Amino acid sequence: MAGDTFGHTLQLTTFGESHGRALGAVLSGMPSGIAVDEDFIQSEMDRRRPGRDRFSTQRQEADRLEILSGVFDGMTTGAPIGMMILNSDQRSRDYDELKDVFRPGHADYTYWRRYTNVDHRGGGRSSGRETSMRVAGGAFAKLLLRREGIRVDAGVRAIGGVSDDGAPFAPPFDNPIHAVDPAMAGLFEAEIDRARQEKDSVGGIIECRVTGVPCSLGEPIFDKLDAQLAAAIMSIGACKGVEIGAGFRSAAMRGSSCNDRMYIEDGRPVFRTNNCGGILGGISTGEEIVLRAAFKPTPSISLPQDTVTRSMQERVIEIHGRHDPCIVVRALVVVEAMTALVIADNLLRARSYGD
Amino acid sequence: MAGDTFGHTLQLTTFGESHGRALGAVLSGMPSGIAVDEDFIQSEMDRRRPGRDRFSTQRQEADRLEILSGVFDGMTTGAPIGMMILNSDQRSRDYDELKDVFRPGHADYTYWRRYTNVDHRGGGRSSGRETSMRVAGGAFAKLLLRREGIRVDAGVRAIGGVSDDGAPFAPPFDNPIHAVDPAMAGLFEAEIDRARQEKDSVGGIIECRVTGVPCSLGEPIFDKLDAQLAAAIMSIGACKGVEIGAGFRSAAMRGSSCNDRMYIEDGRPVFRTNNCGGILGGISTGEEIVLRAAFKPTPSISLPQDTVTRSMQERVIEIHGRHDPCIVVRALVVVEAMTALVIADNLLRARSYGD
Amino acid sequence: MAGDTFGHTLQLTTFGESHGRALGAVLSGMPSGIAVDEDFIQSEMDRRRPGRDRFSTQRQEADRLEILSGVFDGMTTGAPIGMMILNSDQRSRDYDELKDVFRPGHADYTYWRRYTNVDHRGGGRSSGRETSMRVAGGAFAKLLLRREGIRVDAGVRAIGGVSDDGAPFAPPFDNPIHAVDPAMAGLFEAEIDRARQEKDSVGGIIECRVTGVPCSLGEPIFDKLDAQLAAAIMSIGACKGVEIGAGFRSAAMRGSSCNDRMYIEDGRPVFRTNNCGGILGGISTGEEIVLRAAFKPTPSISLPQDTVTRSMQERVIEIHGRHDPCIVVRALVVVEAMTALVIADNLLRARSYGD
Amino acid sequence: MAGDTFGHTLQLTTFGESHGRALGAVLSGMPSGIAVDEDFIQSEMDRRRPGRDRFSTQRQEADRLEILSGVFDGMTTGAPIGMMILNSDQRSRDYDELKDVFRPGHADYTYWRRYTNVDHRGGGRSSGRETSMRVAGGAFAKLLLRREGIRVDAGVRAIGGVSDDGAPFAPPFDNPIHAVDPAMAGLFEAEIDRARQEKDSVGGIIECRVTGVPCSLGEPIFDKLDAQLAAAIMSIGACKGVEIGAGFRSAAMRGSSCNDRMYIEDGRPVFRTNNCGGILGGISTGEEIVLRAAFKPTPSISLPQDTVTRSMQERVIEIHGRHDPCIVVRALVVVEAMTALVIADNLLRARSYGD
Repeated sequence: MAGDTFGHTLQLTTFGESHGRALGAVLSGMPSGIAVDEDFIQSEMDRRRPGRDRFSTQRQEADRLEILSGVFDGMTTGAPIGMMILNSDQRSRDYDELKDVFRPGHADYTYWRRYTNVDHRGGGRSSGRETSMRVAGGAFAKLLLRREGIRVDAGVRAIGGVSDDGAPFAPPFDNPIHAVDPAMAGLFEAEIDRARQEKDSVGGIIECRVTGVPCSLGEPIFDKLDAQLAAAIMSIGACKGVEIGAGFRSAAMRGSSCNDRMYIEDGRPVFRTNNCGGILGGISTGEEIVLRAAFKPTPSISLPQDTVTRSMQERVIEIHGRHDPCIVVRALVVVEAMTALVIADNLLRARSYGD
Repeated sequence: MAGDTFGHTLQLTTFGESHGRALGAVLSGMPSGIAVDEDFIQSEMDRRRPGRDRFSTQRQEADRLEILSGVFDGMTTGAPIGMMILNSDQRSRDYDELKDVFRPGHADYTYWRRYTNVDHRGGGRSSGRETSMRVAGGAFAKLLLRREGIRVDAGVRAIGGVSDDGAPFAPPFDNPIHAVDPAMAGLFEAEIDRARQEKDSVGGIIECRVTGVPCSLGEPIFDKLDAQLAAAIMSIGACKGVEIGAGFRSAAMRGSSCNDRMYIEDGRPVFRTNNCGGILGGISTGEEIVLRAAFKPTPSISLPQDTVTRSMQERVIEIHGRHDPCIVVRALVVVEAMTALVIADNLLRARSYGD
Repeated sequence: MAGDTFGHTLQLTTFGESHGRALGAVLSGMPSGIAVDEDFIQSEMDRRRPGRDRFSTQRQEADRLEILSGVFDGMTTGAPIGMMILNSDQRSRDYDELKDVFRPGHADYTYWRRYTNVDHRGGGRSSGRETSMRVAGGAFAKLLLRREGIRVDAGVRAIGGVSDDGAPFAPPFDNPIHAVDPAMAGLFEAEIDRARQEKDSVGGIIECRVTGVPCSLGEPIFDKLDAQLAAAIMSIGACKGVEIGAGFRSAAMRGSSCNDRMYIEDGRPVFRTNNCGGILGGISTGEEIVLRAAFKPTPSISLPQDTVTRSMQERVIEIHGRHDPCIVVRALVVVEAMTALVIADNLLRARSYGD
Repeated sequence: MAGDTFGHTLQLTTFGESHGRALGAVLSGMPSGIAVDEDFIQSEMDRRRPGRDRFSTQRQEADRLEILSGVFDGMTTGAPIGMMILNSDQRSRDYDELKDVFRPGHADYTYWRRYTNVDHRGGGRSSGRETSMRVAGGAFAKLLLRREGIRVDAGVRAIGGVSDDGAPFAPPFDNPIHAVDPAMAGLFEAEIDRARQEKDSVGGIIECRVTGVPCSLGEPIFDKLDAQLAAAIMSIGACKGVEIGAGFRSAAMRGSSCNDRMYIEDGRPVFRTNNCGGILGGISTGEEIVLRAAFKPTPSISLPQDTVTRSMQERVIEIHGRHDPCIVVRALVVVEAMTALVIADNLLRARSYGD
């Protein structure tokens, strides 16, 4: 209830700070008997790991996930899965001089107002490093979904002012920046490089799709599948907007073009379009689920910025620590993880309400 | 857990179908001793009530809210507040011929797949009429917020293809369509009228702001205030997108311009801009909270549309029942209600975690 | 979260005060397609209804349950079931002089300390009349259980100082007082009559059993089936103790006699005894579930009692309103209802966690 | 929702198996700024630690608690507290031959039916070793309570067939067996020794009291303080009964003697007796909270017992592993921990609902 737990039937509870001893999680509610592919799980961790390329912070962390419980004979047991990564390359002293200063665009000020005794080092609990445990949980969720033939993929639609033209979504996106449209990859990289050279940062837009989802997942009224997805994605730090299907574009459409018409193919109902993004009345239609999320530019930049301190003094700071010029590329796997957790949770949850 | 309950500390549970006997709700967790201004509550109900003007369905319902419990001597007691409106003008027979047909853009198909035994009349549980109880709950939440000097207002930013130009947000919006920019009101009306004349419908964009919110509401990580708001708003039928502050626009910004700088005024910290929409790290900054939501066009239109039936036959339907050519105007109070519920919930919830 | 909701997957939320307009409930999470036997539901309401015999208060209430939603074509739809009874025979003035006085053994004092603005009439929200809605919810739960061949029965084991001798539990208990041992019925009645004649009241012990429960219901660790049952039963006003299987008696046993040995019968495992009461490690064994609950004497008595007032004055009161000399007989159906809700909830909940 | 999390506002989530790598927990919702007395926390762990005396299993485990997050500068930060103990002395091979056999009185059979892929070693997740993390969470809860002047103490009232005579409850209980009545300590020890010598085990009764609890903790109706306590205590493995105040004894009382009369002392209301155990209507009265719990004999005994195997064969087993002849002494700190968690949770929770 303090916001550290996500999900209803499949629940992920996380803990840990950027420069504390460890980050960890408990995944509760996984059915027993699911094969635990540790290589896959670690490969998901690696997709988010810092220090891998020039788009990410140069902090070096192995992010090697230790599974502490809930797995026996290579399979889940139904017991809660405890897991953990240790922090190693902390360089907490980098943050000593920032202790009393509120970094613009970060949670430093709000956390300090709320908690007073705050672990400020590297953002502490509010650091993006917290998302490592979402990825760990999401990897398990993907194992569950994979068994049901469901897959989750995300790609980059826009970086800074540059966006693609609605290219077809055909994962995997094997270009370095995981652009949906490989033709855009170079432009996206250039946009990031330019920002970095100018000691600045850029944001971007991620699209995520889920295929193989059966019709009828999601709860009506308040726990609509799209509402759950919106919360899941918006809970990722730096996310400032979420849309489903035609999203904001649908506001400008007519009902006659926005409604997805149905017809029969091989005796089964099919939708001619998917403006609803695979969800009607909060419940999955069986079509692809489509969402897009806007991420703001990384708030840490080396340009001088005006701000204030805990003692209410004005101050100019330049943040010379290690940070990503663009968080979007590393956020892809986090978006997938949160989406996978929502779908897996609803898959299990729906079983209770069948007749 | 079946999605009928909203909130953590202040919880709204709703029930009722469009053409059933009644719609009702239980609001649980209201502190005792709050004066219950029944006129205000009914006036909120009236803002959503059908049949009021030419922008809304011609169904005539009094939507008179009966308060059944939880109030004594004109004040809340801390006990759950039961409330209810009776349905009167149901004309359920209008829906007899639609029983087996899935109306495009509606939840008919997904509900049928999920529940099999479905009250199809007027959309049953999936009808927008369900939102009346959100408004009832939201009205109580506003009474709680008012006592703390917090107010919630929503206005229309766009209808169909027509949007305003970022006019200042200065409620109340006294024009008939509640446009943020009164100069746009006529254009918005024309857009709706044109759609109706063409037997079609249009969507639009609503902006909602909360003023007077203290710094430090919201929970970190998964229950960030913006994540909760995103879920709350996206759970309103027909909503397809939500953004906070600069929202999707922030994806195209540089960190140096997106970060909201702080300075000191009268010894207190102030933000020079509010691109973050009043929320950093999921916790309120004390600035205005700003969100925008995209609504798709009303799916019910009289134009002929292709669809299929429960028996998997293709069919063309024209929906001649009563329906809104544009849901946006009536949705305003629902957006406010959901926002008010989130803020009130977090106000109470934060009390538990203070030191 | 304010304590008005019970259950995880099948959730009952109640509202209403003893002398308010109505008592009501929302039952959320019922699967669709369950035949709603309204006669059965009303007959359950009638088992708890006041004014039926000399063991219960003489307040006359029809307690006719109105179902407001969630049922269509005689079956559940999966939508929340709203329901309500109206209060009629309130005689609130009986309570005017009690407004400022804390009745001993009642919640008057604690509610006043917690809520300040309290509906004192007949105990308001803390009245035993609240349990009518538990019975309504429990009746629906029983309909769900019945379909699975599960039944729940409760009988009286002791009244005041008189208890049976461990007679076999063979429902239905058709004697007027629903004694497990019909030979005890007269003695139990005499015990109640004697208390009433002496302007006093008595308590008693109820035993409840569930047959037909499949093996493997309940969640490990904190939500053990017995822990859930203990909370469910202890949440009934006047209940002061709960035990499972051999219960308190097991404290005096040796492991060698307390452990229930297994053997094979017709190829299936069977337990030779059932000291564990059908639950091991918090999970049902497939044997009968057995629990016993102790109820204290009705706190309302006409004998003079010392107490204090809201203005901190000492006072002597005699409670001459209508009240039960022994709550146990009317509590039977409430114990069954809470038990049925727990079992039904866990039946649905377990479906999510199967492999 | 899978039963691994306890509490509403202060939430403890645990993981780990008896013979896995580690047992751990996340405590979420602790307010910031609470001094973390690590020596006290470890001393609580030590009270439950195995191998300490002849009343407990000879398994040697340091049970040294590592705090992984949520603490900074010696104080809580409001972030979730991750914690862990490593398993060392596992001797899992002791359990190889038991893999397919259901130990009588244990959860082996029910877990296997529910989960199929079960970590059988030492009972796996169903082992009493799971309670170490309850103690860790409870120790933090006690730090919170201590600041409010609230303390929680438990002592032994009965071992096997020997029980005390209602001696005054005056902690601390410094005798080796923590008998409430020190005069009983020798008899209790003798009872345990006799059981061990006969290769058998015994149960017992624990009483727990909380002093300094303010009036008005607990939620009405379903989350009554006593209902929460009943669930908390009954969720401890081997607990078979819980009673509050006069408990089962109250069933035999008259209202006139069971009701706790109030009078005024120094201008404040006081209760002359405490048969209600400090709780009326589910809400604390301000008097001492009193509960008693019955624990069954340890199911692991070396005497031969009939049982069956996974392959549905009958079999006789003698359990020669390390096990406690009586779990009661080590359970004391677990009862205190669960009680402390409930009280602390309700202390925080009540803050939200004040007016």
